[in-house]
Amino acid sequence: METKLMSDIQRLETNEKLSRVVIHQGVAYLSGLTADDRSADAFGQTLQVLRKADALLGKAQSDKSKILSAQIWMRDINEFDEMNRAWITWLEGTVPPARATVGATFALPDIHVEIQFTAAV
Amino acid sequence: METKLMSDIQRLETNEKLSRVVIHQGVAYLSGLTADDRSADAFGQTLQVLRKADALLGKAQSDKSKILSAQIWMRDINEFDEMNRAWITWLEGTVPPARATVGATFALPDIHVEIQFTAAV
Amino acid sequence: METKLMSDIQRLETNEKLSRVVIHQGVAYLSGLTADDRSADAFGQTLQVLRKADALLGKAQSDKSKILSAQIWMRDINEFDEMNRAWITWLEGTVPPARATVGATFALPDIHVEIQFTAAV
Repeated sequence: METKLMSDIQRLETNEKLSRVVIHQGVAYLSGLTADDRSADAFGQTLQVLRKADALLGKAQSDKSKILSAQIWMRDINEFDEMNRAWITWLEGTVPPARATVGATFALPDIHVEIQFTAAV
Repeated sequence: METKLMSDIQRLETNEKLSRVVIHQGVAYLSGLTADDRSADAFGQTLQVLRKADALLGKAQSDKSKILSAQIWMRDINEFDEMNRAWITWLEGTVPPARATVGATFALPDIHVEIQFTAAV
Repeated sequence: METKLMSDIQRLETNEKLSRVVIHQGVAYLSGLTADDRSADAFGQTLQVLRKADALLGKAQSDKSKILSAQIWMRDINEFDEMNRAWITWLEGTVPPARATVGATFALPDIHVEIQFTAAV
């Protein structure tokens, strides 16, 4: 029984390439999230990503207060302050997770920011 | 006894810089994997990486159906579709893991793709 | 009681953006670490990052022998050997963790290297 529980994996919002959420042993692993409205700037795209994270974490019976770590990638690292403005607004009243932010390139050139979370469930 | 089990760490294929697989509390953390035959294109290198992952996951008593998350780095993000073609072929019949893909630079210039996995054991 | 323990999250060195260490179910998730003296070269900055990791791991009741995985980002991937020289010196006598290293860009242009760890506690 314990072994069964240990190896249990739950997946949410699955397509042929990825599952948006994978839950195992009390930890939710999210896929990298990007904004749907990519006409928005770095601040606006970050807010969109964070609202998407709220929805996914909710489906995983978690929330932003239970995030363990976040990996943030930015198209232009000079937009770091804009991303942080959205991030800090979103986190207000919550103890923040571990985090790392670096610049990278994306499959769609109008993506400003992508964020991947792990969270406690 | 429980404490001992909790802190137990198992490592496979260790060299002076890294262990290819580290297992702790039912989760296997793999090192970033790259292709051995780097004359292959993005599609071919991705297949090589995924076959290498199969072998390592097998040694960890896991397999591709138990992957929790994958981090994919690509030298040229415009080769995204080629990588995905190999990825989807490999995953056929399996529920896919959480995933994030970004462009990055590699220590060896003929590397097209590098993938790092975490998997349930 | 077990449920409570499972969902317990401990955070260390928290500011408005991130917590340097987040501990959950026997795993410590560290934020990406960079050097304080950024006049140092890749070798020197890597040593600074690793000493900082030693201190943080100590606060989490862990140490470098319990690191599960490391993600290393470098401003100039051609400095790979210099980073490795510091890394191998630091790890001497310890079985190394899983690891992946790629080139990326940083918010501060004089950062040579950033490293993010997960470790058993």
